[in-house]
Amino acid sequence: MSSTESEVVVIGSWASMYTSRVRIALAEKSIGYEFIEEDLSDRSPLLLKYNPIYKKIPVMIHKGRPICESLIIVQYIHETWKEGYPLLPSDPYLKSQAAFWADYIDKHIYSGAKKFLMSKGEEKQKGVEEFLGYLKVLESELGEKPYFNGESFGYVDMALICFYSHIIAFGKIGNFSVEKDIPKLFAWATQCLKRESVSKALADPNKIYESLIAFKKRNGVED
Amino acid sequence: MSSTESEVVVIGSWASMYTSRVRIALAEKSIGYEFIEEDLSDRSPLLLKYNPIYKKIPVMIHKGRPICESLIIVQYIHETWKEGYPLLPSDPYLKSQAAFWADYIDKHIYSGAKKFLMSKGEEKQKGVEEFLGYLKVLESELGEKPYFNGESFGYVDMALICFYSHIIAFGKIGNFSVEKDIPKLFAWATQCLKRESVSKALADPNKIYESLIAFKKRNGVED
Repeated sequence: MSSTESEVVVIGSWASMYTSRVRIALAEKSIGYEFIEEDLSDRSPLLLKYNPIYKKIPVMIHKGRPICESLIIVQYIHETWKEGYPLLPSDPYLKSQAAFWADYIDKHIYSGAKKFLMSKGEEKQKGVEEFLGYLKVLESELGEKPYFNGESFGYVDMALICFYSHIIAFGKIGNFSVEKDIPKLFAWATQCLKRESVSKALADPNKIYESLIAFKKRNGVED
Repeated sequence: MSSTESEVVVIGSWASMYTSRVRIALAEKSIGYEFIEEDLSDRSPLLLKYNPIYKKIPVMIHKGRPICESLIIVQYIHETWKEGYPLLPSDPYLKSQAAFWADYIDKHIYSGAKKFLMSKGEEKQKGVEEFLGYLKVLESELGEKPYFNGESFGYVDMALICFYSHIIAFGKIGNFSVEKDIPKLFAWATQCLKRESVSKALADPNKIYESLIAFKKRNGVED
C-alpha cells in the first residue's frame, strides 16, 4: 500500500517543533497515523506534491488531501474528530483569545531564537534578552493558572510546549536557565510533560542542542 | 454613554486594510457598530488598554471584551453571529484551505509591498517582481473560479480584497498595472467591489497613494 492511502499520514521531522505540535494533537484525539520522516536536506517528491507553496513540514494528509501549517492542522483535527479531548475552547471569545496567543507564539518564538542563534557577542546577548522578553510576556499571560486556557491542557499549551526541548537547548546556547529565568513556564512545562501525548512527541533536548551546534558550525557562527 | 459600552466597537483607521477587513465582515453580517478612528501617530489610551501586546489596529470590542488581529476577529464574528451570511466554509477541509490562503496573504502581501515601497532602483524593481510573484500565486489559486472559495464571496476574498485600494496605489509607485499584470485578480476584484460591504469599506486608492508618497517622503525614500 502506498503511504498516502493510509487514513492519516504525517510528513514531518523528529527535530521539528511544528511536527511535534501535530503529533500532540493527534495523540490527544487518539488518532493513529503513519509518520514519514522527511529529509530536509533533500526534500521528497511527496512533500513537494503536498505542500507546493512552502515545501515545509509538517503536512498532514487525511484521506489523500493535504493540510499544511501546524496551527491550521490542529484546528482541522479539532473540527474533524469532534469526539474525544477538545483541542480548542467551544466559546468563541475564549477561542479567539487562544488563537491570539498561539499566533503570538508563532510570530515570535522561532524567529526570536533564530536571531540570537545566528549572532555573536553583544548582538547575541541582545537577542537573548529579546527572546526571553517574548517568553516573559507568555509567562505573564499564564499568570497563576495551571494551563494557558485555565484548568485544562489546551490549544495555547499545545502551541508552546512543542518548543520546549528547543527552549532548553536555546538556554544552553544563550546562557539562560529555563528553571531560573522563566520559573512559571518551567513549572507549567513540567506539568505538560506528564501527559504522554507531550512526552512522546518532544525530541531529546540534547539531540536538539547537538543539531543546533552543528547548524551554527555549518553557517560559521561559532562562539 | 462611553464608547466601549456599545455592543460592538471597532478601533481602526480609514487607511488600514486590516480595518477594512473587519468592516466587510461586520457588514456581511449586518451588524451595526461604533467606529473609532485611531490616530496612529499618537495612540489612544483606549487602544493601549485593549491591545496592550501589539498596540495595533484594528481592535473589535464586543460587550466590553477586546478581540485583536483581523483574521481572528473575522473568525470570531463568524462564530458569534451564526445567522446571516457565512464568512467561512462549514466543511473542515474547505475551512483549512481558506485559512491557509488567508494566512498566505497576511504573511506576504504587506511585507512584500513594504520591501519595494522602501527601496529604490534595482532593489525596488526586484521587490516589485517579488510582490507580483505573490499576487500571481494567488491568481493561480483563484484559477477560473469567480471567488477563492468557489461560487460565493468568502473568507479568502475578504482577506485579500481589503488590500485592493493599496494594491492599486502600489502599482502607481511600482509601475505595474493591476489590469494588465494580474488580469484575473483585476476581474475578481471588480466583482468583489460590486458588493456594498466591500465598496463601502475600502479607502479611495488616490488617498492611499498620497499617504504612501507622504510616508516615503518622511522616510527619505523618494524616487
